[in-house]
Amino acid sequence: MAGPRKLVLIGIGAGNPEWITLQAIAAIREIDVLFVVLKEDQLDDLVEARRIIIERHRDVPLKTVELRDPPRPWQTTPDYPAAVASWRAQRLESWSAAVAAELPEGASGGFLIWGDPSLYESTLAIVDKLADASTRAGRPIEVQVIPGISCVLALAAAFKIPLNRQGRAVQIAPARLLASGMPETVDDVVVMLDGKQTFARIDPAGLEIFWGAYLGTAAELLISGPLAQVRDEILRVRAEAAEMNGWIFDTYLLRRDRVSRSGPVRN
Amino acid sequence: MAGPRKLVLIGIGAGNPEWITLQAIAAIREIDVLFVVLKEDQLDDLVEARRIIIERHRDVPLKTVELRDPPRPWQTTPDYPAAVASWRAQRLESWSAAVAAELPEGASGGFLIWGDPSLYESTLAIVDKLADASTRAGRPIEVQVIPGISCVLALAAAFKIPLNRQGRAVQIAPARLLASGMPETVDDVVVMLDGKQTFARIDPAGLEIFWGAYLGTAAELLISGPLAQVRDEILRVRAEAAEMNGWIFDTYLLRRDRVSRSGPVRN
Ligand SMILES: C[S@@+](CC[C@H](N)C(=O)[O-])C[C@H]1O[C@@H](n2cnc3c(N)ncnc32)[C@H](O)[C@@H]1O
Ligand SMILES: C[S@@+](CC[C@H](N)C(=O)[O-])C[C@H]1O[C@@H](n2cnc3c(N)ncnc32)[C@H](O)[C@@H]1O
Repeated sequence: MAGPRKLVLIGIGAGNPEWITLQAIAAIREIDVLFVVLKEDQLDDLVEARRIIIERHRDVPLKTVELRDPPRPWQTTPDYPAAVASWRAQRLESWSAAVAAELPEGASGGFLIWGDPSLYESTLAIVDKLADASTRAGRPIEVQVIPGISCVLALAAAFKIPLNRQGRAVQIAPARLLASGMPETVDDVVVMLDGKQTFARIDPAGLEIFWGAYLGTAAELLISGPLAQVRDEILRVRAEAAEMNGWIFDTYLLRRDRVSRSGPVRN
Repeated sequence: MAGPRKLVLIGIGAGNPEWITLQAIAAIREIDVLFVVLKEDQLDDLVEARRIIIERHRDVPLKTVELRDPPRPWQTTPDYPAAVASWRAQRLESWSAAVAAELPEGASGGFLIWGDPSLYESTLAIVDKLADASTRAGRPIEVQVIPGISCVLALAAAFKIPLNRQGRAVQIAPARLLASGMPETVDDVVVMLDGKQTFARIDPAGLEIFWGAYLGTAAELLISGPLAQVRDEILRVRAEAAEMNGWIFDTYLLRRDRVSRSGPVRN
């Protein structure tokens, strides 16, 4: 094995194992080492989903190296921002050490990334820093990113709807930015990372919701309608499913119906 | 063949044939008819890309039905909106007639959609209307959507960058909405459908650009940097490539660097 070492972030899609691309499959076959990030709040079902993908597409055994995140500082730690910064530094250091030890010259290591590596995913930023530092230290590491079907696209496909309306913008946002309601400047927002059921706390006037949980899996749940009418049903179904499965992943599109700023809606 | 007729919108990814998913491949193998939309401004290279995908993944011959869009009204037509509405009605009618004639009971027909079917793509809206009308008329048609790697994700993968910054939103917008500059309320915008080099007409202060053309193909072009510094280079490279290839597809991320509204950027 000659040439620089390589780290490949492999987008595997956000639920359905059939969403994997031929490029991702080829990468899974070619890597020498698989790095598996174990977070504190690790969801066993997602670990299992990744295991199934490897098993299905890899003929020869794959060496696996676990990367364990250090324990996160408590939100109540005095000087929390400093504690987070030091936690990040520790994580970078422990990942760097593992890669240095386990990835020989000329070898390539892979990370299986849920959905797409570019959306609300920290792995890429960490790997980038690690590769930069290694390269500066005279042990070059190349990074490659393989796109995957994000839950954003999975949501639209499940509902068979366009994400944007004609000639208009669509926004993707973490739920905390929606806490004070829909942004004024855009009428279509896909919301991710909602641990607080933000959709049920905002003014529902004029809003339609397309809500999906466990998209692409056997447990998939879909509810849509005027937000005022369906939000209680979503709360109930969501709570029951989270209780039954022990975890939940949900995402939703909020769509505002009104005459657009720039003239009538022409959809 | 029993059961209702089916129309499947198959996302094939936005450039690299290896971006096709296993779900899309299975659909290509299963459909009975392929509907090929021929637009007036049809790009031969994209027709060719689709042909290659079919050839690679389909063992048995595939019946192909061409759907020709009626000629578009001139922008200068008196009462242009009415002319567009009537053009749309004609298109719907001609597609409906073709589907009625060519898709037998119980059969399934496919459309190969560039990138993902939910982003800046009109096919889904038309197919939906057509299926609704047919279902109401007593000949039910089911619609299925298969997600694909959008050029938005392809752009991020090519540059190996996250689309969003931590805790923040990202917007996807058609270029015409950027004509008067970056929106004030979001600092990361992916721009599509830019026939007018909008990036070179807006105030570049504080903006970085990640520009990609022909993403995922052998002709791929990537330029990034502070907008003020690289926009002339992009204009030049873009014009040369468009001239040489006879067409161009480009998309870009505009990223504003500043202390964010909700405190310092924590990327
Ligand atoms: C850390 S982000 C990772 C997103 C991923 N990179 C992607 O492109 O889909 C996790 C969030 O994505 C959303 N999500 C991921 N997979 C999902 C699924 N199968 N169904 C519903 N939401 C999902 C949820 O909002 C969840 O909180
Ligand atoms: C009609 S839209 C279709 C988008 C498609 N549904 C998707 O998900 O990528 C066409 C626009 O997408 C962008 N685009 C599509 N493929 C591209 C590629 N390979 N490279 C750069 N831009 C691309 C360009 O902005 C182009 O004007």
